[in-house]
Amino acid sequence: MFKVGIADTTFARFDMGKSAIDELKKKTGGIRIVRYTVPGIKDLPAACRKLLMDELCDIAMALGMPGGKEIDRVCAHEASTGLIQVQVVTGKHIIEVFVHEDEAKDEKELSRLADKRTREHALNVYYLLFKPEELTKNAGKGLRQGYRDAGPARE
Amino acid sequence: MFKVGIADTTFARFDMGKSAIDELKKKTGGIRIVRYTVPGIKDLPAACRKLLMDELCDIAMALGMPGGKEIDRVCAHEASTGLIQVQVVTGKHIIEVFVHEDEAKDEKELSRLADKRTREHALNVYYLLFKPEELTKNAGKGLRQGYRDAGPARE
Amino acid sequence: MFKVGIADTTFARFDMGKSAIDELKKKTGGIRIVRYTVPGIKDLPAACRKLLMDELCDIAMALGMPGGKEIDRVCAHEASTGLIQVQVVTGKHIIEVFVHEDEAKDEKELSRLADKRTREHALNVYYLLFKPEELTKNAGKGLRQGYRDAGPARE
Amino acid sequence: MFKVGIADTTFARFDMGKSAIDELKKKTGGIRIVRYTVPGIKDLPAACRKLLMDELCDIAMALGMPGGKEIDRVCAHEASTGLIQVQVVTGKHIIEVFVHEDEAKDEKELSRLADKRTREHALNVYYLLFKPEELTKNAGKGLRQGYRDAGPARE
Amino acid sequence: MFKVGIADTTFARFDMGKSAIDELKKKTGGIRIVRYTVPGIKDLPAACRKLLMDELCDIAMALGMPGGKEIDRVCAHEASTGLIQVQVVTGKHIIEVFVHEDEAKDEKELSRLADKRTREHALNVYYLLFKPEELTKNAGKGLRQGYRDAGPARE
Repeated sequence: MFKVGIADTTFARFDMGKSAIDELKKKTGGIRIVRYTVPGIKDLPAACRKLLMDELCDIAMALGMPGGKEIDRVCAHEASTGLIQVQVVTGKHIIEVFVHEDEAKDEKELSRLADKRTREHALNVYYLLFKPEELTKNAGKGLRQGYRDAGPARE
Repeated sequence: MFKVGIADTTFARFDMGKSAIDELKKKTGGIRIVRYTVPGIKDLPAACRKLLMDELCDIAMALGMPGGKEIDRVCAHEASTGLIQVQVVTGKHIIEVFVHEDEAKDEKELSRLADKRTREHALNVYYLLFKPEELTKNAGKGLRQGYRDAGPARE
Repeated sequence: MFKVGIADTTFARFDMGKSAIDELKKKTGGIRIVRYTVPGIKDLPAACRKLLMDELCDIAMALGMPGGKEIDRVCAHEASTGLIQVQVVTGKHIIEVFVHEDEAKDEKELSRLADKRTREHALNVYYLLFKPEELTKNAGKGLRQGYRDAGPARE
Repeated sequence: MFKVGIADTTFARFDMGKSAIDELKKKTGGIRIVRYTVPGIKDLPAACRKLLMDELCDIAMALGMPGGKEIDRVCAHEASTGLIQVQVVTGKHIIEVFVHEDEAKDEKELSRLADKRTREHALNVYYLLFKPEELTKNAGKGLRQGYRDAGPARE
Repeated sequence: MFKVGIADTTFARFDMGKSAIDELKKKTGGIRIVRYTVPGIKDLPAACRKLLMDELCDIAMALGMPGGKEIDRVCAHEASTGLIQVQVVTGKHIIEVFVHEDEAKDEKELSRLADKRTREHALNVYYLLFKPEELTKNAGKGLRQGYRDAGPARE
């Protein structure tokens, strides 16, 4: 039975962890979930390392919502860099789901976007664990999470 | 009994270490504190590594106050990157509390902000050690440290 | 017999994995290929680490198509940094083939560029494995992948 | 007896190594010094790693003078990042003393600044080794090296 | 007998590897040289790791010529970061010789600059291996490679 780690933050303005868990449970009964909440996105690398190495999760999701200022973009970059380092060390995937506050025009759209992107990436986690061949079928198909798919380029 | 490392700097213009220790002691008698002061924020990664690996602290706080110039922002970025690397290596949290000198309009506000942000992050350290479920209860609630909480986005 | 890992994404708008595999097979029957598709370029470092360390591939190709916005450039930078870290850890090459969506003026040119650059880098993989001396013969010759070679500078 | 590594460069336009050694010797007879000169600042991480791991120094100083162009700032950033990595790996401090050529209005001021900043950081090395409590006494005091101290912010 | 690794690229528009080898051989018969050519500068970290760890070279040169566009500057930064990581891991020097295509006003100057900078850094390799005291003699002397030395600042 696979074990999935869900790392999220109190900084985010939407409960992305709830969306991720709901979507994963809808999709399959064959996983166990460990949730771990930290203050901000810069705490996600340590959280994911704990989930993957101490809790022995097979994969993790790192859910965060950076603010809209330049300093927030730098924080997000630092967090991402750390999340990749944890993957290099552990050899396991961390599916990063970041929703930048300024991606949406208002709070309602922000909530909708955070929910949708998280759920679509939860599906990616499901595919990576159970049906990797589904991802290969969609290679080069221009898939997007949270927005409409871009689709393949005309040849 | 948990051991908390407090790393701070002589560069900062406010004694953030004192605020952190005061807040932690107010909250609980159940921790030991090790304080380690270095010249500047770039020395914090090595300081935290010493606290976590040599002093065997369970968690550390990295307290710093970068200046307001472009070069200071680069230094802060380098320090943050190093702090994340130490977390990846040790598997322990380092709660970074950086107050940028240009976040405040005058020295008085700078002091107040440094004190408040440090204390609120000291509480996060307390929750991570003793009551992680409190953080999960606040997942997605738009919490901020030093400023007013942003709150959850309207759905 | 050499084993080549091909990591690609569902985000890309062209099936670069197919081009890579086709070109490698045209060139030699002496390799085995393992393909692994992930959602986006930030998942490529973990994918390549799995290919090189779990699947024991001798070399990998990391195929991706970052979007044309600033945030996409940051993602590409993070992915590249991670790919280099995996090479530092494993001691094996990962030939990165990134085609930025805004390199091409329309979808047709984007497809052509993605196909051509992937194929030319597949040849580099072939040379690294079977004929490294061919690369040395071309040292300093200003070779480009996907575009016309720049050629050596006049002396 | 402590051993201090001094890494400096032929690129710098002032003999910072000499200032560091002079200041350390003035302060105490209780250390041994190993000096290692490399071409430029990007060579300092490897130099410091050699000093700390091969020569078994307890601490190192990395002395450099980046030029005033954008490319020099990138080099300095890369060097700093590497110096932090060496600290993460070795668990020992490297006190970085960089003087940017464009910090000073003329050559004379540049020399004076390089000398002063190096000497003041040599004192920090002395305190870290022999009197760490002196640094804690100065926590939050707004100390600067090479320039006038900023001092603590008014509360 | 020392072993020197020379890593270069087919992307460069000048045969920098040839200049490096020629200069090293002119200077001493006391070294063995291993040359390894890769497609581009991002492949240099893996190449140098192979030279230093698999071929057991004592030192390496990483020779590259980034293009003049913004994306090329990012690539160069990523390559440099990786080269420093390899040095941190191996504890051996990699002397990076990068000539940015837009440093020169025409192809002829580009060739001359690439040749000169490579040869002057080959001398640095020679000094690091055989006469480190020569570098210390030149500490703070404002030496440059490829251009006229800046010289020491007036005191």
